[in-house]
Amino acid sequence: MKIVIAPDSFKESLSALEVANAIEQGFKQIFPNAQYCKVPMADGGEGTVQAMVDATGGHIVERRVTGPLGTPVNAFYGILGQPNANGHHTAVIEMAAASGLHLVPSTQRNPLLSTSFGVGELIADALNQGIKHIILGLGGSATNDAGAGMMQALGAKLTDVTGANIKFGGAALATLHNIDIQSLHPNISDCTIEVACDVDNPLCGPRGASAIFGPQKGASAVMVEQLDQALAHFANVINRQQTPQITLGCEYQAGAGAAGGMGFGVMALLAASLKPGVEIVTQSVGLEKHCQDADLVITGEGRIDGQTVYGKTPMGVLNVAKRYNVPTIAIAGCLGDNADAIIQQGMIAIFPIIPAVQSLEQVLSDAQLNLTNTAQNIAAVWSLSLKPI
Amino acid sequence: MKIVIAPDSFKESLSALEVANAIEQGFKQIFPNAQYCKVPMADGGEGTVQAMVDATGGHIVERRVTGPLGTPVNAFYGILGQPNANGHHTAVIEMAAASGLHLVPSTQRNPLLSTSFGVGELIADALNQGIKHIILGLGGSATNDAGAGMMQALGAKLTDVTGANIKFGGAALATLHNIDIQSLHPNISDCTIEVACDVDNPLCGPRGASAIFGPQKGASAVMVEQLDQALAHFANVINRQQTPQITLGCEYQAGAGAAGGMGFGVMALLAASLKPGVEIVTQSVGLEKHCQDADLVITGEGRIDGQTVYGKTPMGVLNVAKRYNVPTIAIAGCLGDNADAIIQQGMIAIFPIIPAVQSLEQVLSDAQLNLTNTAQNIAAVWSLSLKPI
Repeated sequence: MKIVIAPDSFKESLSALEVANAIEQGFKQIFPNAQYCKVPMADGGEGTVQAMVDATGGHIVERRVTGPLGTPVNAFYGILGQPNANGHHTAVIEMAAASGLHLVPSTQRNPLLSTSFGVGELIADALNQGIKHIILGLGGSATNDAGAGMMQALGAKLTDVTGANIKFGGAALATLHNIDIQSLHPNISDCTIEVACDVDNPLCGPRGASAIFGPQKGASAVMVEQLDQALAHFANVINRQQTPQITLGCEYQAGAGAAGGMGFGVMALLAASLKPGVEIVTQSVGLEKHCQDADLVITGEGRIDGQTVYGKTPMGVLNVAKRYNVPTIAIAGCLGDNADAIIQQGMIAIFPIIPAVQSLEQVLSDAQLNLTNTAQNIAAVWSLSLKPI
Repeated sequence: MKIVIAPDSFKESLSALEVANAIEQGFKQIFPNAQYCKVPMADGGEGTVQAMVDATGGHIVERRVTGPLGTPVNAFYGILGQPNANGHHTAVIEMAAASGLHLVPSTQRNPLLSTSFGVGELIADALNQGIKHIILGLGGSATNDAGAGMMQALGAKLTDVTGANIKFGGAALATLHNIDIQSLHPNISDCTIEVACDVDNPLCGPRGASAIFGPQKGASAVMVEQLDQALAHFANVINRQQTPQITLGCEYQAGAGAAGGMGFGVMALLAASLKPGVEIVTQSVGLEKHCQDADLVITGEGRIDGQTVYGKTPMGVLNVAKRYNVPTIAIAGCLGDNADAIIQQGMIAIFPIIPAVQSLEQVLSDAQLNLTNTAQNIAAVWSLSLKPI
């Protein structure tokens, strides 16, 4: 009997690997001799690097880079332990690790000024190691610079009418006159970049990066307008380029507006492809292979609600398991409104783990025990299938 | 496929029948055509009358009786809808309905004075209707009078040295000189009385009624001592009697100290037998018959913890189901410490129903929905047994 355990992390409580271990422990009470295949999962958001490193036996690289405010911060990325289908090693970068909103004290949040330069430094570091496949998770960014900072870190020259380098931040893009990518990092052209992106916003306009995501990064209505015009100008300057390496018209592509326009930057300037995060992760960790001969798949997430079906980990795992008719059960730290939506999609069942009326602190600190208990009880009910009725 | 649903009530939230209905609704989402057998359960405590009436299609009788303070209160008892093994109809009485602590404002609690007279009135009312089988649930009483009040209501004469009737309450038992049961209700001798009792305390001493249960009824240390001596005197007076209807030496019997000594009173004076409440209930509602050909039993209780194995409903239901090797699953409003103890006894699994960190108010008000959802998810996992691995 083979049981695949492929959960996301439980935010503020357990990593995906810890969740998988806790579930395994519960199942082992009922099925001590089953074959367990633990695949820590993620959807491209927070925890993706750790989960994928854990799932593949890779390692974390720590680097000090330029933070969103231009001052140094400690960041990291991951190198997966297994080569990809092309035999290349993969680096996984969470944009938020270098340019995340959590790196900026709330009083200093200003998307006019924040830069994605650190993301470019992490990419450059991976390229320096010979990496030819990069997975970049968007989300959680403090920036609204459409990846301009990232490009600067990779060697692009973004200059104003005087020929001087423009400053960091989205606002400075309004002063951009020319972009020169001739001196980009030499390895970038041999590197495939996949970007985990779960939003379909365009770069500009009422559904654009500035209008939709600017406010949560500290932008006022006036700043949103200023940033929206600056990003539109950035796109115009790029679309004037005659360089074959540049892809034109990306500002209208779905996902261009993700992560303060980073989606646009990676598509236009790095020929990156945007995909739902959980699809990139399931593919990279080989979930499909693990599921092919499984008898049961257990997934989970800190919270399951009506949004879960839109690209969260349990939905991504379910989609893979369904291809092989493997029944899938989800365990959740908690359930929110319309959690049943994923049942409609074919999830067999979803179970919360909270044993009693308790404080959030206690629920978070007992998560491991509660997970194990819930998993054991699910396993026990499932074990009845050994005595078919 | 036959599924037996035999839960207790969820205190402060749902009756046992409502719990059973909610569970059935969840299972029907997965197994719309299964045969459902709903058996509302109880363990002799609060909710026993309602559950047994619901389980058998009986009815409730409302009566105004003498409350624990001697003033009138609204009380009730139940008449079961099915005759017992001897063809007799059964009345079910919860002692607390007439003499419960909840009927006394906390400032007026005084076990020196409180009386079980109302319990006797309910018994007399049932006897007047020709009832020949009474189930009496102890517990929740405000009294410490060893059932003396009950006996007075049934026609016994409890007199002091002057020949005057003694007053209500445990303290007045110290003045008892003689007990005359010649004028007891004429139907009592033809009536079998089963008493649901889950404690094994003797009447007197450090583990007796007054020492153990007196304080929660408002007794100070001095009052406990006074009551303990009064009950010992009551037992001495009874043991002096030469009446064959009286059973001697009951003060040392397990359960004599239950419900302020009511256990002693019913054993010594009414030849009642004391049994664990859940055994009386399971027998009276015919749970064993329902379980014989069942494929699955679902039970439940508002709270499952380490104490549940000591005679609570889920344990009683499990014991019956085990006799026929029917797998049993419990659903709980919440889980407390050592809830797993019942797993050790053979319960397949226990599931709490709380979906998220919520207030007690919300958990109580959403209990029906959460029960249905949990039941549906359990049913879905169990349904995998239709496709054996």
